[in-house]
Amino acid sequence: MDELVGLEQVYAAAERVAGRLHRTPMVESETLDERFGGRLTLKAELFQKTGSYKVRGILNKVLTLDADERGRGVITLSAGNAAGSLAWAARAAGVAATVVMPAGAVPAKVDAARSYGAEVVLVEGDLLAAYERLRDERGLTAVHPFDDPTVIAGAGTIGLELLADRPSLDTVLVPIGGGGLVSGLALVIKELLPSARVIGIEPVNADVVSRSLASGVPEKLPTARSVADGLAAPMCGVHTLAHIKRYVDEVVRVDDDSIVEATRLVMSRTKLALEPAAAATFAALLEGSVTLSPDGLTACVISGGNLDVTTVLAR
Amino acid sequence: MDELVGLEQVYAAAERVAGRLHRTPMVESETLDERFGGRLTLKAELFQKTGSYKVRGILNKVLTLDADERGRGVITLSAGNAAGSLAWAARAAGVAATVVMPAGAVPAKVDAARSYGAEVVLVEGDLLAAYERLRDERGLTAVHPFDDPTVIAGAGTIGLELLADRPSLDTVLVPIGGGGLVSGLALVIKELLPSARVIGIEPVNADVVSRSLASGVPEKLPTARSVADGLAAPMCGVHTLAHIKRYVDEVVRVDDDSIVEATRLVMSRTKLALEPAAAATFAALLEGSVTLSPDGLTACVISGGNLDVTTVLAR
Repeated sequence: MDELVGLEQVYAAAERVAGRLHRTPMVESETLDERFGGRLTLKAELFQKTGSYKVRGILNKVLTLDADERGRGVITLSAGNAAGSLAWAARAAGVAATVVMPAGAVPAKVDAARSYGAEVVLVEGDLLAAYERLRDERGLTAVHPFDDPTVIAGAGTIGLELLADRPSLDTVLVPIGGGGLVSGLALVIKELLPSARVIGIEPVNADVVSRSLASGVPEKLPTARSVADGLAAPMCGVHTLAHIKRYVDEVVRVDDDSIVEATRLVMSRTKLALEPAAAATFAALLEGSVTLSPDGLTACVISGGNLDVTTVLAR
Repeated sequence: MDELVGLEQVYAAAERVAGRLHRTPMVESETLDERFGGRLTLKAELFQKTGSYKVRGILNKVLTLDADERGRGVITLSAGNAAGSLAWAARAAGVAATVVMPAGAVPAKVDAARSYGAEVVLVEGDLLAAYERLRDERGLTAVHPFDDPTVIAGAGTIGLELLADRPSLDTVLVPIGGGGLVSGLALVIKELLPSARVIGIEPVNADVVSRSLASGVPEKLPTARSVADGLAAPMCGVHTLAHIKRYVDEVVRVDDDSIVEATRLVMSRTKLALEPAAAATFAALLEGSVTLSPDGLTACVISGGNLDVTTVLAR
């Protein structure tokens, strides 16, 4: 159940999704370097298809389903980016998609999933229970948004690109929701560049991974709420917890005010329209719970850009 | 007085600023193409030093000042981006800078000018009068934010890059404030690719260029106000009007609501944190006053990204 993903599965994922997804650029900012006293490099996954890294793992999963699994249609649960990713990937593969989302999801994320042709089911209350009921009633093929070795392997492809573009990394800072991104990324970094540190960052009010590390088993947290909607996962995964225990050096928690401040700071300095989840790593730098080594190079994964833009220019 | 800038001045500007400024990338978006029924390519000047194209012309100007002009210090008036640009360029050249800005300027733009070491003078009321008084009292060297052949030549360098990267352009859409950007860009496009259309877009409540074209002489408009603060120039220039008459095919006006909608649309689709001035071209597409030729390629200049981020994620 908790076997770890291997590098060969990540290489296979990279080959499988090649040509369908973007190879996203690295972005640097002198003013951010000055602000935080070190050298930063940003992996701009907000420019990925669907506006989020999520599509890497989800597409990898959809492409490995057999004919029967495809024929039954797929389902996932998501605060947003996995929903859009599954809708997009399923359409590309000619598969019907259902996505279960919280009623309070960012409207743009709901619209995105619908625009890619998915059936969107909005849920008040227990998202996980609603998802499991619908999956079983309709006999749909489950695509977990993060707790799946094939999804984790897809996320790992970011690590291959990161090391190809910036081979002398010192530290990698990664936002954590349910742990899919950090699991795939950390395994690649630690296997290929063991000297690098990998630090995950999650919101204090959606800290299911920190709680799971403390208890030793995957916890649930149905009341997870954060301005970083993309990080408010209601549960930690079995697979993700195993990868985090093995490969991640540290998990740090940040509060929502810092995430808002970080989002505005990074947007104003880099001109990247990042979503708050993607700014969580900078929130940790603002709070001082993570400091940059003055000599090394630190990579931050800008995980997505599906921001609620309705507040922009609000007067 | 109204001699037109020549290509050789633009080439000289490009050589002068080379290595000090970024060569900004082109960005494409399939969803924008589908939305507007044509092929678009975006010149991402928001990634330029200081976050705006303005620095091209201002730096070109500062680098051509003689020792006496530099020694007296420089001054400009600006709603924001010319202020930041002059402050940055002057610091790079070791020259003292004073910038006159409206009291209601976007705070981030005021902060930027101060952070680059300029003295910022905030003015309630007539910006132009305050600027002229201070310039004369202190004997400062005037750097006009747009109405200067050397500044216009600097803006023209965008046209050289645009044609190098996308030589088969059909149309260029350009935001208009006082006309500096469109003057430099249009002269390059029309001299090197006469078949291309150049269309300027300005806010209805800050339409000093449309008014000047109607009357035939450079008008003033002290009450210019727009959500696109970067386009709310209080006057048209003598030089810019001459270039616009000669080289620009059409000037279209857009309202502020469309600019807000366009800013959010382009940000959500491209993940570029553009400022409202930079979205004015898309406002014209939304209003239908400009339509894309279904076969040709249309370039939009994303003129800057110095957005007021304090509203982002406001709850």
